[in-house]
Amino acid sequence: MVFERLNQQIGFIVEIDKLKQIFRQTLLLADQRRENDAEHSWHLTLMAVLLAEYAAAEDLDILRVVKMLLVHDLVEIDAGDTFAYDAEAHRDKEEREVRAAERIFNLLPSDQAREVRRLWDEFEARQTPEARYAAALDRLQPVLLNLHGGGGGWRLHGITKAQVIAYNQHMEEAALWEYVRQKVDEAVEQGILEE
Amino acid sequence: MVFERLNQQIGFIVEIDKLKQIFRQTLLLADQRRENDAEHSWHLTLMAVLLAEYAAAEDLDILRVVKMLLVHDLVEIDAGDTFAYDAEAHRDKEEREVRAAERIFNLLPSDQAREVRRLWDEFEARQTPEARYAAALDRLQPVLLNLHGGGGGWRLHGITKAQVIAYNQHMEEAALWEYVRQKVDEAVEQGILEE
Repeated sequence: MVFERLNQQIGFIVEIDKLKQIFRQTLLLADQRRENDAEHSWHLTLMAVLLAEYAAAEDLDILRVVKMLLVHDLVEIDAGDTFAYDAEAHRDKEEREVRAAERIFNLLPSDQAREVRRLWDEFEARQTPEARYAAALDRLQPVLLNLHGGGGGWRLHGITKAQVIAYNQHMEEAALWEYVRQKVDEAVEQGILEE
Repeated sequence: MVFERLNQQIGFIVEIDKLKQIFRQTLLLADQRRENDAEHSWHLTLMAVLLAEYAAAEDLDILRVVKMLLVHDLVEIDAGDTFAYDAEAHRDKEEREVRAAERIFNLLPSDQAREVRRLWDEFEARQTPEARYAAALDRLQPVLLNLHGGGGGWRLHGITKAQVIAYNQHMEEAALWEYVRQKVDEAVEQGILEE
């Protein structure tokens, strides 16, 4: 039996094991180790399922949200993680990531490579309700880890309340945004986030 | 604004950060570090999306497969990872895991706690086509990492071809099972798996 298509799919599945080596600026709650992209993607995808009731749009296609979140950071295997608050690194981020998308997604059979590219493009463009909900969660998840982990990741980089608010304020999910606002105020009162 | 329901959901989301600290017997390809359950869950969930064409049943509800895989290892936060080939540890596995499910899932609002419990029960029972496909992937993923990582995890525990075959043989996805058979034979020839 020849497995040409399956071999391509397995080749991709094996390659993306590398996502477990891409470390972010967010610290885990238990041991303050930096979180990697694979762990982040899992956490985020499960959040998408559990918090769907807060999405700004009704009748969201949750399976598409889930697919987007599962693949949204794969380009970082080549392009690396770009810290949310690092304006300098954001200048050539798109160019680096598009190059990465072309190499990594094309390990798949061409129909699936196109599908994954469409999902990633949709996520990056943030135009559809699914992509906007996915992007809101991608911002909420590190905020939660900072709030519940004593603000370690924020302190490490001297992040202020104004930066957190500015970065999250396009969040359209009213309850989630209100929650972030309230908790960020509490974080300032508790001294885990700079005013 | 009071966030009683959202606070419960966030409480659960924060608690399950601990899944990133539960280490398995499988080694990552890049640095031979042990894989944790969160990384494994992400990898597996994306595999479920990419390999759906090989599922034994048609018209699978992929969103339910995805949900099952996202939560299937959460009980290990309390119960720990039970190595596939450790018969002794499997004796009280169910009891430990049910206790864990009761504590962890009930952090959620009761409707969602019940849904997650149903998903986990379905996965464990392996009766529905969705659960059988999910379970097959849960076995395939560590096999792939062993095949492509020089059999490190197998060698660490002296696992033989007969054990790998026995553990995977209820895989109903014909192409995936055929692939495993062929690759396991090659692994024996290459000396990365004991006959």
